[in-house]
Amino acid sequence: MGKSVGKTELKFLKYDNKIKLNSGVEFGPIEIAYETYGELNEQGDNAILVLHALTGDAHAAGYYSENDKKYGWWDEMIGPDKAFDTNKYFVVSSNMLGGCSGTTGPSSINPETGKPYGLTFPVITMEDAVQVQKILVDALGIKKMIVAGGSMGGMQALEWATSYPQYVSKTVIIASTSRLTAQGIAFNAVGRNAILSDENFNGGDYYDKKHPEKGLSVARMIGHITYLCEESMHKKFGRRLQDKSKPDFDFGIDFQVESYLQHQGLTFVERFDANSYLYITKAVDYFDLAEKYGSLEDAFKHSDCAFLIISFSSDWLFPTEQSKEMTKALVRAGKDVSFCEIQSPCGHDAFLLEFQTQTDIIKSFLKKDTENE
Amino acid sequence: MGKSVGKTELKFLKYDNKIKLNSGVEFGPIEIAYETYGELNEQGDNAILVLHALTGDAHAAGYYSENDKKYGWWDEMIGPDKAFDTNKYFVVSSNMLGGCSGTTGPSSINPETGKPYGLTFPVITMEDAVQVQKILVDALGIKKMIVAGGSMGGMQALEWATSYPQYVSKTVIIASTSRLTAQGIAFNAVGRNAILSDENFNGGDYYDKKHPEKGLSVARMIGHITYLCEESMHKKFGRRLQDKSKPDFDFGIDFQVESYLQHQGLTFVERFDANSYLYITKAVDYFDLAEKYGSLEDAFKHSDCAFLIISFSSDWLFPTEQSKEMTKALVRAGKDVSFCEIQSPCGHDAFLLEFQTQTDIIKSFLKKDTENE
Repeated sequence: MGKSVGKTELKFLKYDNKIKLNSGVEFGPIEIAYETYGELNEQGDNAILVLHALTGDAHAAGYYSENDKKYGWWDEMIGPDKAFDTNKYFVVSSNMLGGCSGTTGPSSINPETGKPYGLTFPVITMEDAVQVQKILVDALGIKKMIVAGGSMGGMQALEWATSYPQYVSKTVIIASTSRLTAQGIAFNAVGRNAILSDENFNGGDYYDKKHPEKGLSVARMIGHITYLCEESMHKKFGRRLQDKSKPDFDFGIDFQVESYLQHQGLTFVERFDANSYLYITKAVDYFDLAEKYGSLEDAFKHSDCAFLIISFSSDWLFPTEQSKEMTKALVRAGKDVSFCEIQSPCGHDAFLLEFQTQTDIIKSFLKKDTENE
Repeated sequence: MGKSVGKTELKFLKYDNKIKLNSGVEFGPIEIAYETYGELNEQGDNAILVLHALTGDAHAAGYYSENDKKYGWWDEMIGPDKAFDTNKYFVVSSNMLGGCSGTTGPSSINPETGKPYGLTFPVITMEDAVQVQKILVDALGIKKMIVAGGSMGGMQALEWATSYPQYVSKTVIIASTSRLTAQGIAFNAVGRNAILSDENFNGGDYYDKKHPEKGLSVARMIGHITYLCEESMHKKFGRRLQDKSKPDFDFGIDFQVESYLQHQGLTFVERFDANSYLYITKAVDYFDLAEKYGSLEDAFKHSDCAFLIISFSSDWLFPTEQSKEMTKALVRAGKDVSFCEIQSPCGHDAFLLEFQTQTDIIKSFLKKDTENE
């Protein structure tokens, strides 16, 4: 499905002023970690901003080292001749404000105290995250761009399209929603509760001590169940036992699905910060486009671009119903919208797995643009 | 919907011998906590054994004190003229082996050490729970009975019907399954992980110290999300904030659904033992009728009774699909089976809420019996 963008590197932009957050708090300085693939044209209008999901980072494509090729999270989608074609487009990906992969977040050093922010980091929203991305976009000289994201990334793309319509030519929303369901909030709340309950949490001030790994691991396990669907879990694990023919009759690992979840939990704590998990899930919970503008239709009246909305049939965390709701509101608001539900057994995770179908749909959507020009 | 059985009391049966558990371990003595409503006839064949769900107990109907009327968990279903009519039937309910409401479990004192069993309590299965119920049934002089249960109670009813067919005249299976899905095992595994991760768990030896309440509370919250469905959560809470018009921008309670879950977690730890939660969820995970007999059809060939299977349209933990699977297997095995999916927005919890429809269906199913006699 095309070549990789190859070797890439994480870059940093320093912003020394303060920004006004949604909560009213003034916050700064901010460092933004980002990567770019392809070249920006002279007019600055061939950019694509891809936006990562809950635990993603700026490393969307390529790899850092020839010896240890750890490809970015959307490598299959970004590159020469791929869905986001780096022969034509200048693709940008940045780590979200509040994250733990280079952009300022609760694990960053507060220059005023010389210590990590911890819970003194301000609570943030999607608007704040996008406001920070705008600093990067302006610094890179981007005038017009396509915004695209899956899951939480889709929320940010929606925020871009409605808050900064003059920047956005097209919006691609995948496996996402204009607001989390009550059930979605509930899962996030329990995950946060597990972190806050961890004996090592210490009010978020744990960076020079043991980290709240057990709580973060439980939160990740809960998340993982919601990213898969029963059908995919059944196919993947069924009720098969883990490397044994009979159960152990103890509280260790009996079933393959238990082993898988435990592995997910254990590897996650090596790469993610528990405080970041608190801040980012909270920002996801708060996001509600209809609440902000009175209705979804009114929200979309602020946009000035064409939309592509993709959902997956087995995604029960960000169900197709919500994508249809957005599509209908866009139609009512008189906007150009294409909607497609991809039949997939992969659950919410499908946006990180079903590359060929997504590529076909996105290519055709982006081509429409070129033809109109 | 009929009167309550009124004042009732928890009774105890002591069994001083040992039983052989599924794991091969010999275990005893065992005390069984139970309640009865109505009168057993001379032939001993008008009994109904009702079987409780994961965190239920023997207190299925009536109340213990006139001043503090805490009705049993299926009070709406058990009583004069109710679904399980105590004018006609002798209804028995007992706390499950491994529980924490009177029947011997990990919080009980091990007579050999004078200390609570904790994790020295043997791992149990549904077969073991039913074997213990059989001791009670024999002691009460019951020769023939109807078995009925919702959720995990339905699993035990299935176990009764296939392991001790000579006792069972009819089986009522509500919101249950012959085996948990991979997703169901996953949720249980994460709940157990939260308990095992609690700083106060101390290898299960916590009875004279602080209990692992945080972990148990997280486990309960996870459970509660799976007992409701998104539709019922949306109706109940939506995205409404808890007693405020704007979010707090902190990690306390913002949304009503968070408040509800936290309340469920906090009240649960007052009435339930974390070790019991470990043992009973494990028994639920292990239950697999098809695996035991080679196929579901072969399992049901061991039964000798009529079956009523009820599912609820919005139950995604024990989905209708699994009830249909059991129904088909029963038909293939040549058994008398009635199946009904009740349209309900209440999710898995519907078996504790949708009383009128359940009553109508169950009454008609039990009447069929009398008419045939």
